[in-house]
Amino acid sequence: MSEQRKGMLLVISGPSGTGKGTLIKRLMKEDASLVFSVSATTRAPRPGETDGVDYHFVTMERFEELIAQEAFVEHAHVHGNRYGTLRSEVYERLARGENVVLDIDVQGALNVIASEKEKVSIFVLPPSLKALRERLTGRGTETPEAIETRLHNAIWELTQKDKYQYNVINDDLDTCVKALQGIIEAQKHSTTYYTVEVPEE
Amino acid sequence: MSEQRKGMLLVISGPSGTGKGTLIKRLMKEDASLVFSVSATTRAPRPGETDGVDYHFVTMERFEELIAQEAFVEHAHVHGNRYGTLRSEVYERLARGENVVLDIDVQGALNVIASEKEKVSIFVLPPSLKALRERLTGRGTETPEAIETRLHNAIWELTQKDKYQYNVINDDLDTCVKALQGIIEAQKHSTTYYTVEVPEE
Repeated sequence: MSEQRKGMLLVISGPSGTGKGTLIKRLMKEDASLVFSVSATTRAPRPGETDGVDYHFVTMERFEELIAQEAFVEHAHVHGNRYGTLRSEVYERLARGENVVLDIDVQGALNVIASEKEKVSIFVLPPSLKALRERLTGRGTETPEAIETRLHNAIWELTQKDKYQYNVINDDLDTCVKALQGIIEAQKHSTTYYTVEVPEE
Repeated sequence: MSEQRKGMLLVISGPSGTGKGTLIKRLMKEDASLVFSVSATTRAPRPGETDGVDYHFVTMERFEELIAQEAFVEHAHVHGNRYGTLRSEVYERLARGENVVLDIDVQGALNVIASEKEKVSIFVLPPSLKALRERLTGRGTETPEAIETRLHNAIWELTQKDKYQYNVINDDLDTCVKALQGIIEAQKHSTTYYTVEVPEE
């Protein structure tokens, strides 16, 4: 039979420290249809992060240039840094039928939800604020003040969860991965993205 | 944390002979959150079918009475028989948070899709018309004329597939079950049905 699938835009978002990065790595390892949209940011790389893989690390000057060139799908200020989703990472790949994964902050995600007609929006929640604090502390990359800022922001971000199509709690990693895979599997059969023709023989 | 789920109405439909019954039995065996809505019908039981389990087998007179009592969510004429989804099988269970599975013909499903605001609609397709003919013949319960009628109807029914939210081909049973489970898993995280509160601790 003949099956056709349009590429889908997967917006995966949630407060800093909910473990989105680990989740996305697991999803991508097990599903070759997914490609990652590398965001641009003015923040400094964390240990282990690679330019062009985790982020495009750019100066503030370059970031402003990209805005002027209308190179962004969306961009936002988060925790004193700037983050942006590049058009070049998204539209051509969707047109090729690839499923593009955006790992973005809540502000950016809300912009994408408002501006893009077809998207799959997933909010990843921590099991508790206490767990979120522990994860942020355990990361060892933030000052105590930065952790307090992130927690403060998380409380506002959590109020936005119902603006997303899906909510998933990242308590147990395997359970959370399974839920995300279910969401992706469902979209692969959604008539928004999927067209099938039943042949005679 | 506190999680709440509303019951969802799962409309599983498709041409006669696509194997919906077998699929639904598998789904229900593996997911205790699903309950089956037993339809009323005026058609005669097939070998192995039990009254009150597979269908409520009723006379034409009783069926007309149920219509007069407004006991149906929807009812339709299919292949010379009448089929109807009973309100008593649906609404109270949804209100209790149960996930109600409707195994209904395409006409009935289109009625439910039009009338119910919240529903998950899945169209199950055969891999080919040839495969559909073989399944209908293999059933051994239909006359050659009845098989031709069902095939004739299937061609119209297949033109309605994009009115459903999801399309799933029943070629390999395990693959098809996995797709349906993905769709159900996704809804369990959809903000239409799912509300979560993240606690302090």
